[in-house]
Amino acid sequence: MASDFTPSSLLSVADATHIVLSIAKRLAPVSLPLDQALGLVLAEDLAAPDPLPPYAASIKDGYAVIADDGPGDYPVIAEARAGDDASNIVLTPGTVAYITTGGPVPKGADAVVQIEDTEQMEGNHGHKKVRILRRVSKGYDIRPVGFDIAQGEVVLKAGDVLGAAEIGLLATIGVDIVEVHPRPLVAVLSTGDELVDSRVGGLGRGQIRDSNRAMLLAAAAEHRCSLLDLGIAKDCKDDLERLLEKALAAGAHILITSGGVSMGDRDLVKPLLQERGKVYFGKVLMKPGKPLTFATIENSKGHSKQPQELLVFALPGNPVSCIVCFNLVVVPAIRKVSGWKNPSLCRVLVKVQETLKLDPQRPEYHRAIVQWDESSTQSSPCFVARSTGRQISSRLLSMRSANALLELPQGDGAIFPGSVVSAILIADIHNAQMDSSLCAEPGKGPMQ
Amino acid sequence: MASDFTPSSLLSVADATHIVLSIAKRLAPVSLPLDQALGLVLAEDLAAPDPLPPYAASIKDGYAVIADDGPGDYPVIAEARAGDDASNIVLTPGTVAYITTGGPVPKGADAVVQIEDTEQMEGNHGHKKVRILRRVSKGYDIRPVGFDIAQGEVVLKAGDVLGAAEIGLLATIGVDIVEVHPRPLVAVLSTGDELVDSRVGGLGRGQIRDSNRAMLLAAAAEHRCSLLDLGIAKDCKDDLERLLEKALAAGAHILITSGGVSMGDRDLVKPLLQERGKVYFGKVLMKPGKPLTFATIENSKGHSKQPQELLVFALPGNPVSCIVCFNLVVVPAIRKVSGWKNPSLCRVLVKVQETLKLDPQRPEYHRAIVQWDESSTQSSPCFVARSTGRQISSRLLSMRSANALLELPQGDGAIFPGSVVSAILIADIHNAQMDSSLCAEPGKGPMQ
Ligand SMILES: [Mg+2]
Ligand SMILES: [Mg+2]
Repeated sequence: MASDFTPSSLLSVADATHIVLSIAKRLAPVSLPLDQALGLVLAEDLAAPDPLPPYAASIKDGYAVIADDGPGDYPVIAEARAGDDASNIVLTPGTVAYITTGGPVPKGADAVVQIEDTEQMEGNHGHKKVRILRRVSKGYDIRPVGFDIAQGEVVLKAGDVLGAAEIGLLATIGVDIVEVHPRPLVAVLSTGDELVDSRVGGLGRGQIRDSNRAMLLAAAAEHRCSLLDLGIAKDCKDDLERLLEKALAAGAHILITSGGVSMGDRDLVKPLLQERGKVYFGKVLMKPGKPLTFATIENSKGHSKQPQELLVFALPGNPVSCIVCFNLVVVPAIRKVSGWKNPSLCRVLVKVQETLKLDPQRPEYHRAIVQWDESSTQSSPCFVARSTGRQISSRLLSMRSANALLELPQGDGAIFPGSVVSAILIADIHNAQMDSSLCAEPGKGPMQ
Repeated sequence: MASDFTPSSLLSVADATHIVLSIAKRLAPVSLPLDQALGLVLAEDLAAPDPLPPYAASIKDGYAVIADDGPGDYPVIAEARAGDDASNIVLTPGTVAYITTGGPVPKGADAVVQIEDTEQMEGNHGHKKVRILRRVSKGYDIRPVGFDIAQGEVVLKAGDVLGAAEIGLLATIGVDIVEVHPRPLVAVLSTGDELVDSRVGGLGRGQIRDSNRAMLLAAAAEHRCSLLDLGIAKDCKDDLERLLEKALAAGAHILITSGGVSMGDRDLVKPLLQERGKVYFGKVLMKPGKPLTFATIENSKGHSKQPQELLVFALPGNPVSCIVCFNLVVVPAIRKVSGWKNPSLCRVLVKVQETLKLDPQRPEYHRAIVQWDESSTQSSPCFVARSTGRQISSRLLSMRSANALLELPQGDGAIFPGSVVSAILIADIHNAQMDSSLCAEPGKGPMQ
């Protein structure tokens, strides 16, 4: 255990994440109606109780025929529309039946000719006739029983994430209630005597508005967590402890704090966590975010439904450090407790557009806007990354529109335009508006 | 107007999308509390009422000093912690003040020496003393007033999407209520005499469960829309019209129907839309999804708060056609009415892993699982795509775990492994578990 916070005990982000993931436990499954399960991880295998289609069904609107009959004029002896029973219809050679898409293929029929390959004819005495223009093979435009889903086929497995198509699949097989891993209850508090609620208009001398809490609550909401807003703790042990108790009493699974983890004489978060629980690490070799702290606290207040251990992420107070640590280390933890099989972050390679200075001491997570290069060619497809400008950890504007953290190694010198670096995606790139105005402000290059 | 549904009137997907986007209008802004604005598009420029920091602030825990004093032993004459006013402190040459991260730099001080570069000393008569070990330049480790955000600086503009960092930025500048474009109210209905509610256990002969409605509601929810579930319409005009009236009465902005747009004699959706509104197109050159229909209906029932025009997307009944059309054409419409500046879909280039047969008549949207190739190198970074297997439009399993639609051109022959093709991303790749088990089932290759 790293109760020793000397620089020599600095962990890498990879090691820190590894520790967190070894401690974080998947939440026990709950039963939810299908329409509340979107985005959650399935906790059971689900199989189809019946085949799809449950009957041989037409793929087209047209005529059910006997393939061997071939082209010619035929009486239409019946209709088999989608939703019809059609059990009383039997096709004999020389006859056809009208059929619609999804309609049951009548007994005797062995193919479908689409309406575009037929001609309506005048029938005698009200009897319908049709001219079949095309020869089709047996089975043509028919989906046999179980063609799309076999009876008993497992359509989704424990561990699968339920997106819209998966919800559709479960509706197809008649699933109404699903066993899924719930998302965690995430409690958030800010610490600092300088902080006032963000809704405060005028600031007193020495005051700033609390931005971290709103940001972290929003970030947890983006990951579908349940939220508990604990407010602001003053830089005193009693106040911190009071809010910690609230998190425990509410049965929170994760507590995220910001501030109070630096070298100041009123940075009381780490000592409190050491007193109340187990601190796994208190510093990580990263820029920004070095004072990142992770601890667990036994929840003795917990009734059976509550978790046994509260995971506590004590993030640095600078807003950029805060959200970078959230993305790098808290997000994998949220995924793990939410039941993800692989909680790893998504990395891609990107071509940088500017000169990016390296930090000699620490690997840096440089905020950037990554976009697919629309001028890239099939022989050199690529992402390009634009820096969001000055990277000081107090400057939240460096996170504006950022969708990636460039993983810059520690080192001397710089990375030059055109170089390819690893980038951790921190936002949904498919559902983001791509826009050239989302680039670094002119004159505020990352070298400054 | 395309009331003529002959093959010659087939639009490309690009043209169809262009028509939809030229008709869809951005919703009027509403005022929302910041904590309800996550994911929405801002409808106003927002500027900082005060600079950040509002006072010269220390970047470190340490000592506020006069830089010219240099290393040596100094009395600690005051403390300036974060949250302190510090207006009564004045540093004179030969003195220092204790200061914490974010604390106000006292008058007279012009630099900060971090605590790691100092040594605690025994003071006389309770007076504290410190040894400064390092010479720093003027301004060192101080953030001047407005360093992060200048007073009056526009931090976010109309059109920006509010993610967690942007919520944090708005909290920073004291914004509590924001003007944002709301998300549309999306009504969903399924059509078909063969459909029964998905919660039904046993199926009667000729029946299948309605999967499209649950799927489309989930898909609209993924895009943060408000939802109105209208249920199932029978294949008769009265029933369809009854549900259409419900959508209008509820003030829905978008109505999505599925089924009832093929060539059958009870495919009544297009005729009804032509009678009640304006049909812009009724067929699109695409596979799957050819019968995709788009119409608008004047909402005469609308009170002022309701939209003047209901956008109606009549999707084909096959579940895959349905969700593919949703992703290609409805998603850009949702983005447009939600205020996105650029509602285009996100395209990337991907390397295919299998042989993919082309369709001679229509461009095909081949469902695939796209993943960053972790073995790709800096000289050839790439996405790889695996087919989800058999692509028939009734087989929703081809959408399972799919996060992309490969844009295969119409043509003869096939695309071979290693070829690079355009892919439309239809899911969040950053927040998806990457797993090699998410590949096509063995033995169910896309060529079959
Ligand atoms: Mg503090
Ligand atoms: Mg139908």
